Amino acid sequence: MPGVLELLPRDQVAMQKMLDTIRQVFESFGFLPISTPALELTEVLLTKTGGDTERQVYLAQSTGARAQGHEPDLALRFDLTVPLARYVAEHEGQLNFPFRRYQIQPVWRGEAPQRGRFREFIQCDIDVVDRDSLSIRYDAEMPAIISELFTRLDIGNFTIRLNNRRLLRGLLSELGVESADLQGHVLRELDKLDRDGIDAVARALAARGMAATVVDRLLTMAGPGPLKGIAAAEMLKALPAANDAMSQGRDELLSVLSMIEMQGTDPNRIAVDLSIARGLDYYTGTVYETTLDGHEELGSVCSGGRYDDLASLYSKSRLPGVGISIGFTRLFDQLRDLGLVGSASNVQVLVTLIDDDGLSTSLALASVLRTAGYNTEMTMTTGKLSRQLKYADKAGIPLVVIAGEDERQRGTLQLRNLLTKTQVEIPTSDLAATVGRIL
Amino acid sequence: MPGVLELLPRDQVAMQKMLDTIRQVFESFGFLPISTPALELTEVLLTKTGGDTERQVYLAQSTGARAQGHEPDLALRFDLTVPLARYVAEHEGQLNFPFRRYQIQPVWRGEAPQRGRFREFIQCDIDVVDRDSLSIRYDAEMPAIISELFTRLDIGNFTIRLNNRRLLRGLLSELGVESADLQGHVLRELDKLDRDGIDAVARALAARGMAATVVDRLLTMAGPGPLKGIAAAEMLKALPAANDAMSQGRDELLSVLSMIEMQGTDPNRIAVDLSIARGLDYYTGTVYETTLDGHEELGSVCSGGRYDDLASLYSKSRLPGVGISIGFTRLFDQLRDLGLVGSASNVQVLVTLIDDDGLSTSLALASVLRTAGYNTEMTMTTGKLSRQLKYADKAGIPLVVIAGEDERQRGTLQLRNLLTKTQVEIPTSDLAATVGRIL
Repeated sequence: MPGVLELLPRDQVAMQKMLDTIRQVFESFGFLPISTPALELTEVLLTKTGGDTERQVYLAQSTGARAQGHEPDLALRFDLTVPLARYVAEHEGQLNFPFRRYQIQPVWRGEAPQRGRFREFIQCDIDVVDRDSLSIRYDAEMPAIISELFTRLDIGNFTIRLNNRRLLRGLLSELGVESADLQGHVLRELDKLDRDGIDAVARALAARGMAATVVDRLLTMAGPGPLKGIAAAEMLKALPAANDAMSQGRDELLSVLSMIEMQGTDPNRIAVDLSIARGLDYYTGTVYETTLDGHEELGSVCSGGRYDDLASLYSKSRLPGVGISIGFTRLFDQLRDLGLVGSASNVQVLVTLIDDDGLSTSLALASVLRTAGYNTEMTMTTGKLSRQLKYADKAGIPLVVIAGEDERQRGTLQLRNLLTKTQVEIPTSDLAATVGRIL
Repeated sequence: MPGVLELLPRDQVAMQKMLDTIRQVFESFGFLPISTPALELTEVLLTKTGGDTERQVYLAQSTGARAQGHEPDLALRFDLTVPLARYVAEHEGQLNFPFRRYQIQPVWRGEAPQRGRFREFIQCDIDVVDRDSLSIRYDAEMPAIISELFTRLDIGNFTIRLNNRRLLRGLLSELGVESADLQGHVLRELDKLDRDGIDAVARALAARGMAATVVDRLLTMAGPGPLKGIAAAEMLKALPAANDAMSQGRDELLSVLSMIEMQGTDPNRIAVDLSIARGLDYYTGTVYETTLDGHEELGSVCSGGRYDDLASLYSKSRLPGVGISIGFTRLFDQLRDLGLVGSASNVQVLVTLIDDDGLSTSLALASVLRTAGYNTEMTMTTGKLSRQLKYADKAGIPLVVIAGEDERQRGTLQLRNLLTKTQVEIPTSDLAATVGRIL
């Protein structure tokens, strides 16, 4: 089916390993799992008027209900933020705040199938949500988590780019771009700096009616790209505190930077980039993007930000929060294209069967390996050894146990390592320990 | 939303632990993960004519496609067997056979919401599929896996009930019930023995036109319930080999039993029960059900069997297989009702913040704990210690680290254990080791 990523088992193993790593990092920072149903009521999902998102939602209806002529009252979630908002509003009285949740689940969008766009894809989200107010310190925790996550994923160097929407809005006001509507347009154009370059963005802003001098001042301030360490702090301190929004946004960004330093996050992974705007109007303060060094063309692989109110549509409580999201399926697909994804089996040992008299021995050996914690497949029917070895090789199973009649009489077995193409004969009783040393 | 199970975080943690255990056991037996898209083409899913399953399928269509008046061409999978058949047919050339796959994913059915029936629920399936033929020995591997699985889940004793459909069909032929149609009806009635009792089933069979003497002979053979060990083997050997199906089915069951013994599976967990028929016509040989001892009223919590051809609708290859399935969401819900599900946080330590001067110390302590592998949440804003302790207690976090001004001056910290309600002061450098000893 077009628009979905269906994997062969070895790639699926690689995907699961990455997802396990992400989950482990989320859990290590004290996030709690939640899982919401794929189907939500349409009245929950379709709250915005018009817009691309709405047209791309999958409506769902049972064959029985359709036959009776009912309208669909269910739809598949298109992100994990709306379900989180509904979940928090619904269970507010039973949750502990600040509520730290992680959620790793698929979402669906009725995209026209094209390269890199998926109709069904996994998102990995974390958010910290509190009632009434949430300390800026949580904004600094997110880059620490992103840094730990991409370090553990081990897919090369990366840069976490920070900005602050309040600062950007203040900057635009100072430049005379006052209306929220025009500010929104300008922020969306700024977001394209990385992709389209400074000249194209300058032209687009001019086409919106901005004076050349204003465009020039804006791009001078927002355009220098990511700045790290002292350069970032100096640039921020040199900004004019022309209005409350600018000074507040700048101070927020500076305190996030100082706390990131206090946490011991590698400073080479952190940059301030005033062109980062994040398209969504949803964000109000700190915003994040993450790019893979040398693969900036992939765009941001982990993004998010601070928002003022998660669930205004579903709850009377004010629920400010901060969160990040990974569009996992697309990232995995891109990393696979780049050759950055492994391809090993989750099966560690194959126990062969050479002759039927050896059945009980082979069963016992497989059982010993499983008890010792090694994923073990057993061949249930006799067949040429060469064929069984070929099977293991093709499947990516690294170790093969062979206990033919001779070995059984000697109380030994052959342990073959398909990675190093070596084979040793060992006493049967040494099997688990020897496998442990190799793996 | 009715008909779905949405959990609070602590229950979600318990659910994840169970799912992790199931996955570990599947992997330990050398099964490979696959994950198929939730949405399949309707032409793949809706192949049967009529029937409950078809009316309960959720059709899906994007809002855009619906606005254009198209018919839905996608639907949500209602089980994991049809997607497996489609997957194997589609990727046959790239898979290794015997193909051993596990799949843990949600499925959807448009059920009328009622207690214990879910519209969205997780299934945990394994199957071994081969081309042309598959050794009966794989039938014996399934009970070994079920036994390991439910032992590891640690929810009490259980009984794996075995039968053989071929034997049952032969038995019915021998009793003069020859037509496949009537045999099907009789097997479905037999399946109700556990639930409805022998008298009700006898009446239902009589109502189908079976003579009283035939009903009597059938219920005498199928009715004694689960038999274990020597009693099972003796009962099987005493059956008349009146026709090929009976003798073949009986021999299959006997060889499955002997191989189960060879594998070292606890014989107390294994029973032969000739009343197990499994409603589905799909199964052709060995069939399995699993009941929790003392909770037989829950019905089978893990079922499956042997089939002749997985993917006749999608592939020209003959693909015999054997598999088992757990309706996980329902099982979890039932176990929770019985009080058999734990309720701990996945967060192991809370690092408190007593005063702002202690921020960098607390951040460093949290980092030390995470590096040592402990899931650690940190409180980012100062507040009364009593309130922070209450938060940890309510959240189910067992350990709390307190490093106030006095402790920091002494180079120590307080480690409070909320489970034992004890507190020790330890040198800061002993933190990870001490936490490790406690957890």
